[in-house]
Amino acid sequence: MIIVIKPDAKDHELQHLLDRLEHYGFKTHLSEWGNRKIIGAIGDERALRDKPLSTFPAVEKVVPILKPFKLVSKDFKKEPTTVNIKGVKIGGKHIAIMAGPCSVEGREMLFEIAEKVHKAGARILRGGAFKPRTSPYAFQGLGEEGLKYLREAADSRGMLVVTELMDPRDIEVISKYTDIIQIGARNMQNFKLLKEVGKSKIPVLLKRGLCSTIKEFLMASEYIASEGNYDIILCERGIRSFDTETRNILDLSAIPVIRSMSHLPVIVDPSHGTGRRDCILPMAQAGIAAGADGLMVEVHTNPEEALSDGDQSIVPEEFDLLMKRVKIIAATLEKHIEE
Amino acid sequence: MIIVIKPDAKDHELQHLLDRLEHYGFKTHLSEWGNRKIIGAIGDERALRDKPLSTFPAVEKVVPILKPFKLVSKDFKKEPTTVNIKGVKIGGKHIAIMAGPCSVEGREMLFEIAEKVHKAGARILRGGAFKPRTSPYAFQGLGEEGLKYLREAADSRGMLVVTELMDPRDIEVISKYTDIIQIGARNMQNFKLLKEVGKSKIPVLLKRGLCSTIKEFLMASEYIASEGNYDIILCERGIRSFDTETRNILDLSAIPVIRSMSHLPVIVDPSHGTGRRDCILPMAQAGIAAGADGLMVEVHTNPEEALSDGDQSIVPEEFDLLMKRVKIIAATLEKHIEE
Amino acid sequence: MIIVIKPDAKDHELQHLLDRLEHYGFKTHLSEWGNRKIIGAIGDERALRDKPLSTFPAVEKVVPILKPFKLVSKDFKKEPTTVNIKGVKIGGKHIAIMAGPCSVEGREMLFEIAEKVHKAGARILRGGAFKPRTSPYAFQGLGEEGLKYLREAADSRGMLVVTELMDPRDIEVISKYTDIIQIGARNMQNFKLLKEVGKSKIPVLLKRGLCSTIKEFLMASEYIASEGNYDIILCERGIRSFDTETRNILDLSAIPVIRSMSHLPVIVDPSHGTGRRDCILPMAQAGIAAGADGLMVEVHTNPEEALSDGDQSIVPEEFDLLMKRVKIIAATLEKHIEE
Amino acid sequence: MIIVIKPDAKDHELQHLLDRLEHYGFKTHLSEWGNRKIIGAIGDERALRDKPLSTFPAVEKVVPILKPFKLVSKDFKKEPTTVNIKGVKIGGKHIAIMAGPCSVEGREMLFEIAEKVHKAGARILRGGAFKPRTSPYAFQGLGEEGLKYLREAADSRGMLVVTELMDPRDIEVISKYTDIIQIGARNMQNFKLLKEVGKSKIPVLLKRGLCSTIKEFLMASEYIASEGNYDIILCERGIRSFDTETRNILDLSAIPVIRSMSHLPVIVDPSHGTGRRDCILPMAQAGIAAGADGLMVEVHTNPEEALSDGDQSIVPEEFDLLMKRVKIIAATLEKHIEE
Repeated sequence: MIIVIKPDAKDHELQHLLDRLEHYGFKTHLSEWGNRKIIGAIGDERALRDKPLSTFPAVEKVVPILKPFKLVSKDFKKEPTTVNIKGVKIGGKHIAIMAGPCSVEGREMLFEIAEKVHKAGARILRGGAFKPRTSPYAFQGLGEEGLKYLREAADSRGMLVVTELMDPRDIEVISKYTDIIQIGARNMQNFKLLKEVGKSKIPVLLKRGLCSTIKEFLMASEYIASEGNYDIILCERGIRSFDTETRNILDLSAIPVIRSMSHLPVIVDPSHGTGRRDCILPMAQAGIAAGADGLMVEVHTNPEEALSDGDQSIVPEEFDLLMKRVKIIAATLEKHIEE
Repeated sequence: MIIVIKPDAKDHELQHLLDRLEHYGFKTHLSEWGNRKIIGAIGDERALRDKPLSTFPAVEKVVPILKPFKLVSKDFKKEPTTVNIKGVKIGGKHIAIMAGPCSVEGREMLFEIAEKVHKAGARILRGGAFKPRTSPYAFQGLGEEGLKYLREAADSRGMLVVTELMDPRDIEVISKYTDIIQIGARNMQNFKLLKEVGKSKIPVLLKRGLCSTIKEFLMASEYIASEGNYDIILCERGIRSFDTETRNILDLSAIPVIRSMSHLPVIVDPSHGTGRRDCILPMAQAGIAAGADGLMVEVHTNPEEALSDGDQSIVPEEFDLLMKRVKIIAATLEKHIEE
Repeated sequence: MIIVIKPDAKDHELQHLLDRLEHYGFKTHLSEWGNRKIIGAIGDERALRDKPLSTFPAVEKVVPILKPFKLVSKDFKKEPTTVNIKGVKIGGKHIAIMAGPCSVEGREMLFEIAEKVHKAGARILRGGAFKPRTSPYAFQGLGEEGLKYLREAADSRGMLVVTELMDPRDIEVISKYTDIIQIGARNMQNFKLLKEVGKSKIPVLLKRGLCSTIKEFLMASEYIASEGNYDIILCERGIRSFDTETRNILDLSAIPVIRSMSHLPVIVDPSHGTGRRDCILPMAQAGIAAGADGLMVEVHTNPEEALSDGDQSIVPEEFDLLMKRVKIIAATLEKHIEE
Repeated sequence: MIIVIKPDAKDHELQHLLDRLEHYGFKTHLSEWGNRKIIGAIGDERALRDKPLSTFPAVEKVVPILKPFKLVSKDFKKEPTTVNIKGVKIGGKHIAIMAGPCSVEGREMLFEIAEKVHKAGARILRGGAFKPRTSPYAFQGLGEEGLKYLREAADSRGMLVVTELMDPRDIEVISKYTDIIQIGARNMQNFKLLKEVGKSKIPVLLKRGLCSTIKEFLMASEYIASEGNYDIILCERGIRSFDTETRNILDLSAIPVIRSMSHLPVIVDPSHGTGRRDCILPMAQAGIAAGADGLMVEVHTNPEEALSDGDQSIVPEEFDLLMKRVKIIAATLEKHIEE
């Protein structure tokens, strides 16, 4: 950590700061740059982040040198991680596609959608049984009944299941049915929930919070890893911006940026990421072209009747075209879609 | 709800939309505006929000007319609500001040801070026992021990306690010690938690999410109210922006805007709202001048030693000046600080 | 335009509003929706936008129905526009690539870069002679000398020139040398400049402002079109967000969104759009995959020595790979790169 | 400047970087921190900012130590600057109030408004003669005729004039009539315009750009100062956010933040800063309470008839109340309103 000293700091203020740093267990190195003094503090920077350094009267600016996360960083593990879930691989050369309805609305509909998306090449079935809804008056999901349908529909095609966990008290029931636990954007910093899925050892799909920086996103994944669960898939799903034409701005540059900092695989959700049906196909193509390790797409056989987020679902025919195109784009980047 | 029809929509597409709206239980009214057709859909708009209207081929734009929330709206209750917690009033002409350390770090320190802030005029003691920390390696709070200290320190001065609930499983233990349950910014859309505090009937301090709109903020408070708990205090605590000079941008215009939409009281947290010690005094003054019903301020007798957020705490002497000034500003607006 | 009336508006306030609307030349249509009254105002909505409707005491909310722009809208012209500049086409099935250094730094270097990017398939040479720099102490460009070099280097390969205009007083000198006038992001709402290039009839590359909405972007293009210049190419070049890992967030969903509203072609600038060399290749691929009509890429033979923005330039070898890949992606979407 | 070296940088890459830094004229100091190497580069940091350091293969991160601006910084001049314009002082203990209509619409109306705002305590008359409008079809201002009215109305009450310059070609005509030249938010990075007003030596009111950081804002003021004009008043007028309830978010914490970095006075514009009439009074009070050196407020005798921005104007009676209250708040902070 580098600490820039105020030009008018008094000698005893500077000395007090140096004493405290030593007291915290750091070696210090004072240097002068023209008319500026700078302290280099050498030791476990993570411990120092927790100290209120800017309250010291001598301090102008504190500059961290190391990244705040460790286990998920590229410094810790150089090669990209390939998460292998019952034979379906995500990461490295392997692209995996997750598709299905926003909410599980009924058994029959789910079997139908599973059949269609499986045929087009999806290997993981998505669907919500417990739904986070901004309105208390909106459909909140079928609960355990929905989880059962999801499992059965996936099994009928040999697919994996991914579904969202919202409440730490539901982890047992969800674990019975799912292969991948999704942590939604609104819970990205629900630290208690992150710890629970960390302890569970079930693979986790972690969605980026609506206004979380990439560093905060990686810190949230560090919470999971720090409990011993390394099967983490990151998901870029749009961040909030000032323009309301799309529900969110899908930040595709997050893919190369995360690549430069972490070994974890990262996928893209163009449905929530834009909230507009006419944006899903172009942004799914763009996501793969930007280097994503997979996609999560909402597909519904009858979006008009969907109980949630029908506005951002595509129909199976559009999904077929999407799959056809992303296969070519993946091949251009020397990757392939898991089938 | 108003539905603008695409200029090139076909007759059968339009008819299909009208049929579906009637099927959903709405009366429809089709009118022509120059070369544009518009449908007015009359009925319970909240039900219609849940329908994927934009998936219909005839639809160009959907414009809601009513607000998505009800119980917390000014339409529902015209006069501002004054929340009365064991005799301490917040709202209307009554301004209440909450002060204390970020985290509860020890018994003695807490008694000392309680004495100082009480003397200056604070009636509610704040302090975290369960801390949401972005790093899994940072101090996570003292837990129930911290809650006990908080209660004892508050009781020693006849103060109320406010403390944060992060996990629905902790609601029982927290309820034993606190007068007000705080829902933190990161959990503003943790809908399960909102429902729990709604059921609890304990007064709630709801903090605005880092990137939540004012409408979403009010929708979150509607979750609590819809469970029958109307003792809700809103708290503006800064939103995320592109400038990193301050941790957040304290959005003081949220106060008059919320005033125009809701009857709930709203307070300001200049400590988290800026994250900078030199901004707390000016922004506390500005908050009251903008019409806030109260303040939540971090005060620490020794910020250099604080285990969390010392960077954004002021010392008791600064808090005295703050109280002196906000009393004059409150009087200018014909309000008074509860003592 | 739809005007929602306050539930507690008095009769004379409502009547006053109706009278004023008629006075402005609008036909009005009052309807009741449950307990809400709504006015439909029929006439030239663009004229009404200028009126301070929200100052009227009866008004709760004003909802525009039509888009604020006209000549550049899809309502005005359905088919996508293909801009044809001396035989190089942009738009529709035609993708055009602009490449070159950020600033023109010297004659020889420019000829070398022109040769390389032309060989890889670029048909338009970019380079700044007048540079907008955030610091008054930074290199400000070579001026007319730079324009000459640019023209000569382009001519040596039969390429077109695109370069930025910053000051209306420079339009004559720039017009002598360039085929396309670029209006930079910082000048997107420099309305005097927009009018000048509108009058000039030279094709314009209009960059989206750092925090401009898509509607404002299209309104800026309307300024140019309203002076009779329809040869407008839009350029998405990143918007500001809260995350500082990349200089900007490249908003690729702007491409399908603009497509749904306007007939103008839109290209992508992954260099300014990210500010990071390691993001250029993935985001160029993603831009074409999202449906862009072209790219603008900074290429430098020696980024270490670049006088401006070397950090976001790629070398000719990377540009070769970029071109190879975007050709395949373009073909997947049934488009082709102009050569 | 501090340069953090990649952990896997090769020796010759590091050496190449050191060589280049020496070649640029910097002294370098290499130190090791655990497993990290760091270079301190000592010399004129402003020169180094222009170099594409991140293109060097050895570089992980570049951390500037000094601020990018100089003449406007607190390092350059410690005491707050008081700008004195013909006896009206802004800065230090002196608060100055600017008021008037958005656009100059006519002579009589302007005299009437000038009389009212002068009586309430405003000493500077504002009004636009050249208007930046987002739509080419909106009222663009009266031009020189408007400037004449403005001068005459101000002179009738012994007031100063402030008006906006949009085009460098208009500087002569505007200089004949105004005491303060306003640079609008959209032109904050119109560097040619900044240089012109820098050369003019007329006092400048510089508005913060809609999405400019505080550092960029101060860099823009440095452009003016670097031409020898030090009579600069900064104006916070709202930044763009994700919430559309207000036109902008008025960032009042910018006041203490600017105070910590610069000696220049800073005022607040609650009219443009919120775009809502019901926010002007509370945010004007809040602005002064946050420590602003002045206000710029839109006042109109008949907002319903205003040709621009009537939605954000208050009437003279509201302005009277505003002035009454801000005088008390100013006194609480030991300042006074210039009269």
